[in-house]
This record gives sequence, C-alpha cells and structure tokens, in this order.
Amino acid sequence: MKIAVIGAGYWGPNLIRNFLSTEGVSGVVCCDGQEKRLERALKRFPAVEGMASFSEVLSRPDIDAVALATPVSTHYPLGVQALQAGKHVLVEKPLTLRSADAEALVELAEKEGLCLMVDHTFVYTGAVRKIKQYMVEGEVGNVMYFDSVRINLGLFQHDTNVVWDLAAHDVSIMDFLVNEKPLSVMTSGLSHFNEQEDIAYITVLFPNNLIAHFHVNWISPVKVRRILIGGTKQMVVYDDMESSDKVKLYNKGVDYRSGDSVYSALVKYRTGDMYAPNIDPTEALALMAKEFVDSISRKRQALTDGIAGYNVVRILEAADASLHAGGRAVTFSQDSNNGRQRRVALTQAK
Amino acid sequence: MKIAVIGAGYWGPNLIRNFLSTEGVSGVVCCDGQEKRLERALKRFPAVEGMASFSEVLSRPDIDAVALATPVSTHYPLGVQALQAGKHVLVEKPLTLRSADAEALVELAEKEGLCLMVDHTFVYTGAVRKIKQYMVEGEVGNVMYFDSVRINLGLFQHDTNVVWDLAAHDVSIMDFLVNEKPLSVMTSGLSHFNEQEDIAYITVLFPNNLIAHFHVNWISPVKVRRILIGGTKQMVVYDDMESSDKVKLYNKGVDYRSGDSVYSALVKYRTGDMYAPNIDPTEALALMAKEFVDSISRKRQALTDGIAGYNVVRILEAADASLHAGGRAVTFSQDSNNGRQRRVALTQAK
Amino acid sequence: MKIAVIGAGYWGPNLIRNFLSTEGVSGVVCCDGQEKRLERALKRFPAVEGMASFSEVLSRPDIDAVALATPVSTHYPLGVQALQAGKHVLVEKPLTLRSADAEALVELAEKEGLCLMVDHTFVYTGAVRKIKQYMVEGEVGNVMYFDSVRINLGLFQHDTNVVWDLAAHDVSIMDFLVNEKPLSVMTSGLSHFNEQEDIAYITVLFPNNLIAHFHVNWISPVKVRRILIGGTKQMVVYDDMESSDKVKLYNKGVDYRSGDSVYSALVKYRTGDMYAPNIDPTEALALMAKEFVDSISRKRQALTDGIAGYNVVRILEAADASLHAGGRAVTFSQDSNNGRQRRVALTQAK
Amino acid sequence: MKIAVIGAGYWGPNLIRNFLSTEGVSGVVCCDGQEKRLERALKRFPAVEGMASFSEVLSRPDIDAVALATPVSTHYPLGVQALQAGKHVLVEKPLTLRSADAEALVELAEKEGLCLMVDHTFVYTGAVRKIKQYMVEGEVGNVMYFDSVRINLGLFQHDTNVVWDLAAHDVSIMDFLVNEKPLSVMTSGLSHFNEQEDIAYITVLFPNNLIAHFHVNWISPVKVRRILIGGTKQMVVYDDMESSDKVKLYNKGVDYRSGDSVYSALVKYRTGDMYAPNIDPTEALALMAKEFVDSISRKRQALTDGIAGYNVVRILEAADASLHAGGRAVTFSQDSNNGRQRRVALTQAK
Repeated sequence: MKIAVIGAGYWGPNLIRNFLSTEGVSGVVCCDGQEKRLERALKRFPAVEGMASFSEVLSRPDIDAVALATPVSTHYPLGVQALQAGKHVLVEKPLTLRSADAEALVELAEKEGLCLMVDHTFVYTGAVRKIKQYMVEGEVGNVMYFDSVRINLGLFQHDTNVVWDLAAHDVSIMDFLVNEKPLSVMTSGLSHFNEQEDIAYITVLFPNNLIAHFHVNWISPVKVRRILIGGTKQMVVYDDMESSDKVKLYNKGVDYRSGDSVYSALVKYRTGDMYAPNIDPTEALALMAKEFVDSISRKRQALTDGIAGYNVVRILEAADASLHAGGRAVTFSQDSNNGRQRRVALTQAK
Repeated sequence: MKIAVIGAGYWGPNLIRNFLSTEGVSGVVCCDGQEKRLERALKRFPAVEGMASFSEVLSRPDIDAVALATPVSTHYPLGVQALQAGKHVLVEKPLTLRSADAEALVELAEKEGLCLMVDHTFVYTGAVRKIKQYMVEGEVGNVMYFDSVRINLGLFQHDTNVVWDLAAHDVSIMDFLVNEKPLSVMTSGLSHFNEQEDIAYITVLFPNNLIAHFHVNWISPVKVRRILIGGTKQMVVYDDMESSDKVKLYNKGVDYRSGDSVYSALVKYRTGDMYAPNIDPTEALALMAKEFVDSISRKRQALTDGIAGYNVVRILEAADASLHAGGRAVTFSQDSNNGRQRRVALTQAK
Repeated sequence: MKIAVIGAGYWGPNLIRNFLSTEGVSGVVCCDGQEKRLERALKRFPAVEGMASFSEVLSRPDIDAVALATPVSTHYPLGVQALQAGKHVLVEKPLTLRSADAEALVELAEKEGLCLMVDHTFVYTGAVRKIKQYMVEGEVGNVMYFDSVRINLGLFQHDTNVVWDLAAHDVSIMDFLVNEKPLSVMTSGLSHFNEQEDIAYITVLFPNNLIAHFHVNWISPVKVRRILIGGTKQMVVYDDMESSDKVKLYNKGVDYRSGDSVYSALVKYRTGDMYAPNIDPTEALALMAKEFVDSISRKRQALTDGIAGYNVVRILEAADASLHAGGRAVTFSQDSNNGRQRRVALTQAK
Repeated sequence: MKIAVIGAGYWGPNLIRNFLSTEGVSGVVCCDGQEKRLERALKRFPAVEGMASFSEVLSRPDIDAVALATPVSTHYPLGVQALQAGKHVLVEKPLTLRSADAEALVELAEKEGLCLMVDHTFVYTGAVRKIKQYMVEGEVGNVMYFDSVRINLGLFQHDTNVVWDLAAHDVSIMDFLVNEKPLSVMTSGLSHFNEQEDIAYITVLFPNNLIAHFHVNWISPVKVRRILIGGTKQMVVYDDMESSDKVKLYNKGVDYRSGDSVYSALVKYRTGDMYAPNIDPTEALALMAKEFVDSISRKRQALTDGIAGYNVVRILEAADASLHAGGRAVTFSQDSNNGRQRRVALTQAK
C-alpha cells in the first residue's frame, strides 16, 4: 500500500515518520505546494517521494490513500476530491469545520466503499485505551460525570479559538469512552486579546444522568491536563502531566440506599484501594497509522472512523454556537444521529 | 463585651473557643435548646455560661452580641429578633437562604445602628489576605478569569445541595477579591443519589471581560481545592491542599500588540519568576472573631459585613435558580445592588 | 485495670486521652511533680485522678501499670522502680539512653513476669502495618535496601541530637519490618549551631545483602518523610507527607539471569502496575494503648516489647558512637542478641 | 575551527548535532572504527565528513580539536595522543578512570598550551547556572550541607558501578557549586545482581563544617533527582523531575544566638518566602559546545576544564575505594590539590 501525506507543515512529518515504519506500507509520498517545506521534508526523509501537486497525487493509480495534514478549512474539499478519486482518506482532527460537511464525507466514503478515518491521536494512547478497557470490563460502572481540564499558557492561534484548538482532544477522548448520545451543549467563554476566545467552559448533557464538562484555557499559569471520570462503581483520574502512574483507578464511591424519607436514607462512602496500571508506552501515532492501514486492508471500520470525526465536530460546532449565543443551550436533534449508532454496533461487533 | 453563641452543634464550639481568647470579650454564653448538646459544650468550656432559651438571651441586657451557629433556615428569623432586641449579630455562612432576607437584615441592622457580620471564614485565612494584598497593590492587574475547583468525596447533606454547601466558600472568596458587580449566573449540575445536586458547574459573568467559574463536587475520588486567578499582569494559584507554598504568584502572561490584521498582531508570552510568599498561619476563625469584636467596639463596618453576606447569597440563589432552570442564565438587575457599592466605598476608605 | 501516666508534659496528655477510651481500662491516674502541669492536665481530663508523687503511685495496689512520659534519662531508673514495685511498664521511645540499661529492664521484667513495652508509635500506624502485611505475605520478597529520609526545619533540642530525636522513629519502623540482625553501623553528621548534630546519615549493614540508610536533618527547607523498601519481588514507597495514598506497592524490579560472562548476563527490567491500598485511619496511639492493655491481660509479649526497644536503642547508640568516631563502623557482637530471637519467635507464633 | 567527534555511539551524535550549530565551527568530522555506526551517523548528518581512523584524524592539520565520546577506559590514551598531536581535547565525563591519569592529562595540556575540557553537561544547565549565580551573589550564605539523590530503575551497566555511572553527574555539579577542597570520602553500597554495586551512599567531608552526601541507586521504583543545598542564609531545592520551577530558593533557616548555657541559647526559625526563578531553557550541550570553542579561540581556561575533570575523578576514585574497603574513610592529601586552586583563581577572575 502506498500512502501520500498531504501537507509538510507541523504535523505532516510526524505522519510520514510513522507511516515509514508501519507494516503493510510499501511507499510514502509527501505532497506540498510550498517548495521549501517539501524540500525540508524530503531532506529529512530521503526514502520519501516528493510531489508538488495534489491533483497529480490523486491521478496516480499506485497511491492507495491520502492523509490530510492541511489546514482544517481544506479538509472537506480535499477529502471530497480524494474520495471521488478512489483514495482512502485519513484526516487530521478535527475532521471538518461543519458537521454537515463531516456527514457528507461519511456518506461519500460509504458510497464509494472507501475508508474514512480521523486522527484522534489521544484515543490511541496507552492511557486512554487502558481506561476504555476498564469501562468495557465494567470496572467503572455507569458514568455519572466526565470532567476534563486542559489549560496552559499558549499557543494563541489567529484562525481558531480555544474550543476548536484544545477541546477537540478531550471531546474525542469522551466520544471514544462514553457510549451515550449528547442531548445539549452550553458554553461560556471570553476573548481577552484578539477575537478568538482564550478561555471556555463547555457543558455537555447526556441521557442517564451523565454530565460532561471541559475547561479549556490558553492563559493559565500552570499546565493541567486532567480527566476525572466518576463511575457508580469506581472512579478514574487520568493525569497526563504525570511522568508515571498517569491513570489511577479509585475504588471509591457512594453506596446509597433510599429510606422512607430523605432523612432516613443511607449514604455510605466507600473508600477502597487505588490502582495505577502499567501503561503501554507505544507511540499513539504509530498505532493510529497501523489502524488506518489495517482498516483499509481488512476492509473494516476504523476505530476513529468518519462517524467518530462527525461526532466530535458536531459537539465542537454546538459548543462554538453556544459560546457565541451567550451560553444558551444548543440541543441536538436525536434523529440525525444515525451514524453513531452504526459505529457503536460495529465497535461492539469487534 | 459579652457574646452569646447560639447553637452548640458542629460549628458553635469553634466560635466559643475563639471568642474565649479574643481581646475585648469579657464573657461567653452558649445557648442551645437541646440539653445534651449544651451540656457537652459546657463540660468542654467550663468558663462558659449555659442558657437554654434564645428569648432569654435576648432579654439579658449584659449580652451585647449573638453569634448564630444554627441551621441556615433559622438565620433570618433569629437574626431579625436579635437585631430588634438591640444585639449585634454574627451569622454563619451563608447569611440567609434568600437574598431578600439578607437585604432585609442589612437594612434592619443599619436602621438599628447595629453590626451585622457574616462568618466568611476563608476571607480571614492568611492565603486569601495575601492574595488580596497582591491585588490591591496592583501585582495582578485586571482580572481576566477566576477559576475555582472544590471537589471531594462527601459529605452528602439531606437539606442542601453542593452549590449551597461548597460554592458558598469560593463565592465568598471571590466577593472579597474581585471588585465587580456580577451580570449573570449559569449553572449546570446533576443529582445522582437523592434529590440534592452532588455536582455543579457555575459560571458568573462580570463586566470588563471577567469570567468566574466554580466546579463543586461531592463525588470526586480526589480532593482538590484550587483557585486560579488570571490577571493581565500576573497570575495567582491558590492551592489549599498544599501543606506549604499555598499561594503562588506567577509572573506569566501574554503581551499582545494588535497589528493591521489579525495575522500581523503580536502575541508574546511572558514567562518570568514564580514567587510563593510566606503565609501568616494565624487561625482564620480567631481573626474573624477579632473582626466582629473590633467592628462593634470601633463602630465601623466589618470586613465581611451584611452586604458581603448579601452578595454571596445573591449569587448562590441565582446559581441555584439557574441549576433548576436547566442552566439558563439568571441576570441581575443592576439597580438593586446598592449595598455593594457602599461596602466597596468603605473598604477603600480603610 | 488502672494505669498511671507519669509526666504531664508534651506527650503525657496524648497517652491519657487514649487510655481513657481503651477497653479494659477502669481508671487513669496522672502523676507529675510540677503542680501547674498536673493542674492543667486534670482540668482537661476531669475523670482523671491526680497524684504528685511517683513513689506514692508505686505504693498504690490498685494501680496495675505505669506509662513513663518523662525525659529519656529517667526511663531506666523509674522503669526499674516500677518493675520492682510490681507494675507493668510502658515507656516512651526511646526505651533508654544505653542498650545495657535496656537489656537490664528487659531482664528485670522477665524475672518479675511483668509486661515491658515501648511506645514505638509509628509501628501502629495503618501504613506501617499494611507494609508489614505485604512483607509477611511475601509480596515484597527479600529486602535489598531500606532507605529512609526524615528531614524538616526544626525542632532543635538542647539535650539530644538529630539521631536520637528523629532516627528513633525510622529505626523502630525498620526493626518492626526487617527480620535481620544488624552487623554494623556507620554514621556521618555535623552540628552547625550548638553541640548537637543537626544532620546525620546513618548506614546499617545486615546479612543477606541488605543495606539500610537513614537521612535525618533538622535544617532542611522542605519536609520529607519517605521510606523506600526495595524488595526482590516488589518495591514499597511510604510517603507520610501524602494526604492519601501514603503507601504504594510497585511491581517493579530487575530479573537477572547470569550468563557465561558478565556480558552475556541478562538484565531485564520489570515495570508492572502500582497499587495503593486503602489505609486504616485508626489513630496509632489508640492501637498502641490497646496493645499494652491486651498484652497485660492476655499475658503475652507485646508487639513493641522491651526487646524491640532494646534493638532500637542498640542501633541508635551505635549510630551515635560512630558519629562521634568520625564515621568509623561500629560492629555488633552477634551473641548478645538473644533477645531478638525470642521476640521473632513470638511474633511468628501469633 | 574544525572539530572531530571520536565515537559515533550513544553520545557522539549529540555532540555532532551541537557542534554543527556552534558559532566558530567551520567543519565537523566524525570518526568511528565501526563502519556501521559511522554510516548511520553520516546518513543522519550529511554535512559531516566521515573518517575511520583516529590516527588519520590526528595527522590532519586542518582539524583543530577532538571530542572523545569513546569508552572511559580510552579517554586517557586517546587524550594523550591527541594532545601530543597538538589537538585541543574535549572528553566525555568522567575525564579518566584514575586521578593520576587525569592529572597527567592536565599537565600535558598545560605543557602543550592546549585546551583540555571535560563535558560535565549538568554544569551548563540553566538550573545549575542559576544556583551558582545565587551562591556567588551571597544569597545562600555558607553551605552547611549538599544533599543529592539520583535514583531510578536502571540502567545496569556491565563495566561500571552506580558510583561511576550516576554520582559523576552530582559530584560534577557539587565541584562547580562548592568552593572547598574535600577532606575525605566514605561510601557504603551493595551489589545485588552482578558484581557492580547498584546502590551506594557517598559522604564527602569538607572543611568549614560542610558535609556532602550522595544517594545513587539503580534499583529504585521511583525516579528522584533532587539536590538540597543548606546555606546559612537561604536554602536551595533543585528538583530536576519538576517540569517547571526546578529551582526553589527558600528564605528559611535558623538564627542561633548562644547564651550562657546551652539552655539559654536562642534558636529562632526563619520561615520566609520561596522564590522559583525562571530558568534559561537553552540546551546545556549547546552551551558546553560553545564553551569549548570559546575557550580555544580566546585562549582561556574552560569552565569545566581538566582540573574540574580531575577533581571529579578524584572523588569518584576515592568513593569507589571506600566502597571496596567496607566504607572506611579515604582521606585526601591536601598538598596534591594544587590544580584546584589555580582553577578557582581563574573562575574568580572572570
């Protein structure tokens, strides 16, 4: 299989490096219209073939797939062209800027029988996969809340706000871990320097008494990357800033037995052991690259397929809309969410 | 001066202990209708005089002031009686359950020329006073955000939710530190066990591009008590779980110069030194007791006077209302907020 | 059973408080020659009987046992008198200032058929008991090293150095956890302010390739209380400054297979899960008090009996001697250590 | 200036990378007798010239200096050849295996008027340079103790023990920071798997009541890299595992005033603010490379010159000797230490 990485900017070289060592990949092409960037990439990776024109890439029958590491606004048009040219497509996160575009890409890929996948890198980390395992095995129980904090100083972006920049990571992690369809999104935030919001608080409500919350912030003096997952059985703390013991499973909770009146109800705190599993240190991007190649060659849905991409875009889009409507709730039509159900089915089938 | 502590339950004995060693206090009375509780308190504090009846306390001319350590719902009726009987009044936080009641208490105290004070204990900690000092001295600059997290496992309460229970602390700290009148409040939250919400996210918007946010949670596996204050000049982290270096002042921030277009704007990160001041370890409650006695004897407004109590109740009340309205924003009429302005003036006068 | 606590200074009241709520204790007497101290204690504990004279205590037939919370130098003479008067004896750590005195006390108690116990409080903490459990159950394997750090600013003492003051705690923990007889002790340290050493490094060598090391320091800017135990199977970190997860069991280690030459030997690192057990929060001193009463009433050896006290004194004495001999090794005669073997046998019998 | 890096194993490429971007370096040569390693290095650095023979390097008149990234045992013979061939010499730490060899290199370099420098990388970190600045400026006062812990799981080495492997770093930091000549060294340690000691405790005594201690350990479950420096004025904590605030200056200490007797002496603890300076993030190795080039071109002594290398080797050699003599103190002849005095003079002159 031959894969063309489109865009040799910040992220493209990471994709190239990983595809070069992915089993099943016979050749990697790098395509960038900016001569200088292309040259630098080719110098770093002598085994890679360089091309300047995207349409030329699409016309090459020996290239099976493209990976779009281009600005977000180009994901949709380039994705459509690639799928129409019969190429499998991997897209950097977020999949698109609008959920309608994401849906269109999903449907196009389906129609053409091609693989559409989004690079939700964090889903492939050992930490997130371990948490998923705990949740699938019933160690966590029903999720009561999903609380995420991703704050730091920088990096300001001119063309996007902190929601699209930072929350994309955490929403993709939640999409992978939580098996519920969101009901509504509310977001508060402010911009202090330019027109892009630099701080935001996003609340997502789900059925079954589940609340998710995201604090994203470009102007924090301290770097925090922490997710708490409160389950009825056990609770998870995922602290990505820890150099070891990133994931902790706490056997803590509340055992509640209702009584005749609220005053006779029994609330008992459970405080048991804590467990920090050894985490697989394999580079997430290597597993992501492998998943793309595998899902193509085995003709199966990818773990972070187009529908996952659509789910994340839909929440970010709603969060952004709420942010610009003063925090008013944006609710989801529950019918339109067919895509997700299919994916869940597939995931369960694995 | 003689002070009667009303209520010998959980908090009353702490007040007794502190008033016993406050300069200017010549006698402490403890009043509780429950015989057993009163006995236990008197056994612990032999120097204290016991009384079973509140109205008897009020009729005693040698008692100058009462401190209400009774359930929140009693604060208003008992407070009114005490003020009408000519006693100065200290009330445990929160001042009342309704802002209208708080306002009425403030006005009554004013009319009677008596001191009305609320025990916002955290305001008297060395940490919060040090932060206030930094803010007054201009070390922080304009506040861009105030972010607070107070989460832990327990303690469930039957008659109140996590907003009234935990956020009362952080909102009182914010009221003390931030000199702005709130515009609106939005709260999301859920109850998982009984009818009282056990997790909530509160957003408070202020003029001048200031956003405040509070995460309060009774069902967290880890205990976090952290406030971030993002100033245009420097930033503060107040971590109450640290055994030392609770307050850190970060010389970090963003220096922004707008250009002809967004792309030519200059964003420069400033990363300077961090400074952790030595914190005065005096017990906050001792200072609070002293402030009550001093404000009575010097006939001056107390640091956490009735208006501070009103401000906090008003935000908690709005937060609770928003919570039960699905997160919809509750806005404040800006006229009704006269009280606050008076207090600010007084504070500045000191 | 009636117990007399001798000495109402810093530690005595803690013993009184705990004995008052220990099952099997029918009465507590407090004895102190300083009138003021005695008065203060009696005011705090109205149920306690006060006595001014130690000899009078000894002559009272209804008093079964005495607990010595007096200066270390008095432990031996008072202990001898108490045992000769037929009283069971509990002594604050360290048991005595000289190992010969400790041995004499042990022998006297044995001769008289009385209980002699030392208050090695840390042995009764939930953390240390949990570590002991892991070691007894074989979770740790053979101990390769025992590394302890106990450093802080203060408290300087006029009549003792940092070895006797701080290392007493850690050596008593080691004595409880490690089942080996020490071979030799080497100590380096210095005094910077008065004649008492304020920093010391103690090395204790054991058979079977076990090394123990203690860093004790009165002039450290940070407070550290951490013990590492390196086992061939798993490793323990006991961090007493953590508010939760004080004990961590790491499934980490080295799997070594020797080869034909050093270069062909196989060194494989094992990095598995980490486990932080829930720790019993019972106050250590309450369990210590209970152990004293139980060992008397059941006529059995106490967990921290006189021999444990002797073992600790012997190491501290050697550490001090080495310190004043410029760090030269002080070796132990292996014959004299009969006591220890007896205790080990008893412990195993439980 | 043209520099030849000798040895293309683990560390050589780091030197190549840094010399390639050091001002004043016109060409970099890589020399390695192992064809494969040389090839790999040249592929990574196309601008570098490859050579297989060391003697050929020495015979090239256009090569001004060599950097030895070869096994420690080769440092002395290769260093001698290079100096005799008129090349300036940079050597990886430790400079040699024997202090006599280090001294011989120093003398040879001096005789030939060539630069001899050792790569004590940590000396060039922003953290250590900041601490040095504080010490030079008198912020720390007289050093009472220097306490270092460098422990982790791995990496076992077949040809060296934990003292030569890990302590080399900390001793080089101490040599840079502390301006005293060591009096004696005592080391305890054990080997548990092969013949190389995997844990060791090193004590170094200095005049003026200064004690230094190093805990080095290959079999620790947790990674610690922490240095405490106790000064009479302020105290420093350097924690290399912190992602920010690596260096903390504590305004803490003891103010001691002696009285008529020990009991009347006044001990007052000073607990002031803590200060964490912003640390220069420049790569240490880049600064080290620059220092080598600068000291050659400006014909001045390097910061980590041969005498610094000699000082470190001398302590490691003594630590190793003490280790194999059961911890007995190895004392230094104070006459032989002329080298150090010269360097100190030079450092002060800067």
